[in-house]
Amino acid sequence: MKALILDGIKKICVTDIEVPICGNAETLLKVNFCSVCRTDVKMWFQGQRDLVLPRILGHEICGQMFGSDEYYVVWPASTCNDCRYCKSGVENLCSNIQVIGFHRDGGFAQYIKVPKEALIEVPKNVPPEIACMTELLSSAINAIEQVKLEKNQKVLIFGGGPAGLMLSVACKHYGAEPFIVEKSAKKIEQVEYICKEIGIHISDVICDNFDVVINAAPDPNTLSEGILKLKSGGKYCLFSGFTKNINISSDLLNEVHYRQLTLIGAYGSTKQQMKTALKILEDNTQTIKLLIHKIIPLEDVSSILPEILLGQNLKYIVDLQ
Amino acid sequence: MKALILDGIKKICVTDIEVPICGNAETLLKVNFCSVCRTDVKMWFQGQRDLVLPRILGHEICGQMFGSDEYYVVWPASTCNDCRYCKSGVENLCSNIQVIGFHRDGGFAQYIKVPKEALIEVPKNVPPEIACMTELLSSAINAIEQVKLEKNQKVLIFGGGPAGLMLSVACKHYGAEPFIVEKSAKKIEQVEYICKEIGIHISDVICDNFDVVINAAPDPNTLSEGILKLKSGGKYCLFSGFTKNINISSDLLNEVHYRQLTLIGAYGSTKQQMKTALKILEDNTQTIKLLIHKIIPLEDVSSILPEILLGQNLKYIVDLQ
Repeated sequence: MKALILDGIKKICVTDIEVPICGNAETLLKVNFCSVCRTDVKMWFQGQRDLVLPRILGHEICGQMFGSDEYYVVWPASTCNDCRYCKSGVENLCSNIQVIGFHRDGGFAQYIKVPKEALIEVPKNVPPEIACMTELLSSAINAIEQVKLEKNQKVLIFGGGPAGLMLSVACKHYGAEPFIVEKSAKKIEQVEYICKEIGIHISDVICDNFDVVINAAPDPNTLSEGILKLKSGGKYCLFSGFTKNINISSDLLNEVHYRQLTLIGAYGSTKQQMKTALKILEDNTQTIKLLIHKIIPLEDVSSILPEILLGQNLKYIVDLQ
Repeated sequence: MKALILDGIKKICVTDIEVPICGNAETLLKVNFCSVCRTDVKMWFQGQRDLVLPRILGHEICGQMFGSDEYYVVWPASTCNDCRYCKSGVENLCSNIQVIGFHRDGGFAQYIKVPKEALIEVPKNVPPEIACMTELLSSAINAIEQVKLEKNQKVLIFGGGPAGLMLSVACKHYGAEPFIVEKSAKKIEQVEYICKEIGIHISDVICDNFDVVINAAPDPNTLSEGILKLKSGGKYCLFSGFTKNINISSDLLNEVHYRQLTLIGAYGSTKQQMKTALKILEDNTQTIKLLIHKIIPLEDVSSILPEILLGQNLKYIVDLQ
């Protein structure tokens, strides 16, 4: 089968390899679509905490089982089901987690072996090229659940890329009011019609007094800017990892202290959040379709990585049918 | 009346001034005891965000009204009762707050004018020299409420001074298990008998896997050390303000992101938390009495400030009777 394999930093190519052999609790999935996440690009460019090389990347997967017409999305992990995190419904923190596309092979291949229990059936009215974005939406829902978002709250989202837009869709679903701040005039121009369609504010300037801030951008400056824009008692969700080795002043943490702010991390999602995401996606198929920039073949992935790294363009969906 | 007035950084002295004249919603309190907080010392040494000079410091106050035998502790603020914070029961975040001993004059004086509604009557069986520590306990309770402490949780507390010990007493009251980490062997020696009496672990080494970390020490290193000692999904309470202008790496915030940790600020307390604190103090009078190092006259305060700055000795209680 064809697979896109990352061998080392910036070393990626399509290779012919054997179809994987499944273990007992696993099943083989024919991948139909797998969307490109900025984290895939980060792994290609600089590595990532959970990445084990060589690796087939791709964790936003929609596929089919042999002999069936049903489509499935994949909750991208296998977990121990035994640790305190698995037992308390936060299995994305499982001490023994193996994330698909990170610790184990992902969806940029014609076939993938996945834990049977990681599969979630896609409703008939959701096209597979949109369903593959369920994982991104589920991570947005995890962020929203971490901050315990309430109706009518004002949410500041840093970054008008696919993650920022998906977070906005999710915020709106929960009855909150998202405001995207995006520094690039070009990006604003690019996504303005989508924001209008969805009903999201987007601007390069920020008003004050937000209940919640979420960073869908890796720039640590979003932390200092975001904290100043929070109401006292407000919450900042660390959704995107920050650029490494950047200095942050202790004064910023004193602001957290004095104004009783909360900084809270969000990473990945639980299987339940994937199920929730798929339901929300079903209700918002036409909106989420707007996030697709282009559907491309596997052979084109390596050539579009640099532009995703630069934050250009929206979602690339890889067609593996 | 005699009052201890801070005129500028490190400029403090006892002065004879007029007894204050009360406004409509205020009452005059004869101060019996006012305990010295490390924040008082910080204000003397370097100032503080909310400090307005010149100022009579002191916010841990117990006193009496004219013609009455009752003792009262003072919730040390006047608030607008009108903003969203006041209306939602987090009046310590009031946009117009005037903190006693910070924005307005405090308890290191023979008399103090206080908002009538800031007074809480002390039960008969609580001696006034112990009651004055209610405010410190209330700020510990605020920290505990911010992290939503649960029974049997393991809590790591940085610092074996009065704040760390008071936090430990409060944690035990809520059924949690406090562990104090203290770097100074001398301090450990000094408070070991108290910890034994109260049933608190104290050590200079730290085990792993804490549910909650609270810093009762201003060293920003407690943030990196504490984060590494937290279970995934755990909470770090920023209880003590950090030393200013210290660089913290963005990598530490990525740890918060990946492990879904929470950093949450706690500053001051609400009036309800003062009432709760007074009840807990009533149940723990003998324990909390152990936190008193010495009862001193107002004239001795300036001479003991340097040793408190160095974290030496436990509570000094100023006798103003």
